[in-house]
Amino acid sequence: MSLHLVIGNKNYSSWSFRPWIAMTVAGIPFVETVVSLGDPDFKATVGAHSGTGKVPVLIDGDVRVWESLAIIEYVADQYPAARLWPADRVARAHARAIATEMHAGFAALRKALPMNFWRPPKRPALADDVTRDVVRIEAIWRDCRKRFGAGGPFLFGAFGAADAMYAPVVSRFFTYAIAVGPEARAYMDAVAALPAWTAWRDAALHEPWVLPQDEPDWPEVPRLPA
Amino acid sequence: MSLHLVIGNKNYSSWSFRPWIAMTVAGIPFVETVVSLGDPDFKATVGAHSGTGKVPVLIDGDVRVWESLAIIEYVADQYPAARLWPADRVARAHARAIATEMHAGFAALRKALPMNFWRPPKRPALADDVTRDVVRIEAIWRDCRKRFGAGGPFLFGAFGAADAMYAPVVSRFFTYAIAVGPEARAYMDAVAALPAWTAWRDAALHEPWVLPQDEPDWPEVPRLPA
Repeated sequence: MSLHLVIGNKNYSSWSFRPWIAMTVAGIPFVETVVSLGDPDFKATVGAHSGTGKVPVLIDGDVRVWESLAIIEYVADQYPAARLWPADRVARAHARAIATEMHAGFAALRKALPMNFWRPPKRPALADDVTRDVVRIEAIWRDCRKRFGAGGPFLFGAFGAADAMYAPVVSRFFTYAIAVGPEARAYMDAVAALPAWTAWRDAALHEPWVLPQDEPDWPEVPRLPA
Repeated sequence: MSLHLVIGNKNYSSWSFRPWIAMTVAGIPFVETVVSLGDPDFKATVGAHSGTGKVPVLIDGDVRVWESLAIIEYVADQYPAARLWPADRVARAHARAIATEMHAGFAALRKALPMNFWRPPKRPALADDVTRDVVRIEAIWRDCRKRFGAGGPFLFGAFGAADAMYAPVVSRFFTYAIAVGPEARAYMDAVAALPAWTAWRDAALHEPWVLPQDEPDWPEVPRLPA
């Protein structure tokens, strides 16, 4: 039986993007169902499987896992050959620290700069708490690349769970034209060069749903042609 | 070399309580350092080890792990015999889902009902969003006990990572005299009967620090005699 990942809009659902890109880059096969966050049947469709009634949720036979990080831990556990966490003990501990920091943190950034692939790049004024989040994220990336990144262009060399947790932030940094240093920019370019990134982004640009609550400050911005 | 866990006030620091009780119940030896959240040297002391400058942080030789859930994952990884996650695949997936749900969620409850062991039990009026959090937590506990709790009094039978993540909520439910059903109450009583719980609580009651920012709505409530 295939893994079945239920996700929200690819344009908007940052939490859905994390397990999707982790599993796709790792080559773990799965079937996906996209349910728009604005679908009147969303609660009924998703609530049948997810304890929180939210996306993403992974279905694997009699297993139901919700929360982006728990889904990634589940597939890392079931597919050890995918090496979603680093093999080295010190690196793995660090990867879990920054993945959980992302899972529970950066509320200011996530609220002010919602993920949105079809918005043309434009830098808004950033509140102090958003700037602090940006500075911390850039420090996390720089530190990982320096200490653990020798084997490849990602946070711990090869693409893994920690990169997946930060992928929606990479998207936000592009969309809101956040000024970062050369190490962070090189990391963002490596993530955006993944075929999985392109596939997700292309699908996002072709989605028919525009959700007003996710288009807060720039109602005048036209949607990009898909 | 011993594990070294740096934590905040036992009376107030709910995030510190989680890895402390997980490691203590599992019998994993560690040295602890308590730094009051109000200590003027807090940032300097903790920031030397923790990426976020926050507690808890675990030091293990050249490893530094912050975030309560990442610390628990680290010790679960390093001490598999402690069985902090359930051995069964379905139960383990469920445990990670509810542990991550706690890690990132329940903001309304955590803000309105701060952990505080020395406050005499008293039920405040609960806002709707806090009530929703209480209802969801009770449903999580009831569901776990029913589906996975046959081998003991805890969420998955034996005490483990998921119980540790919810331990501060158990404390809050006692402190704020939250009305729960008999299954939830039996679970809370089992957690509070742990010697580790008593040890943490006794230490909390003897702490000399009163933090005004953690005593928001009831300045008239006297501190319990330790």
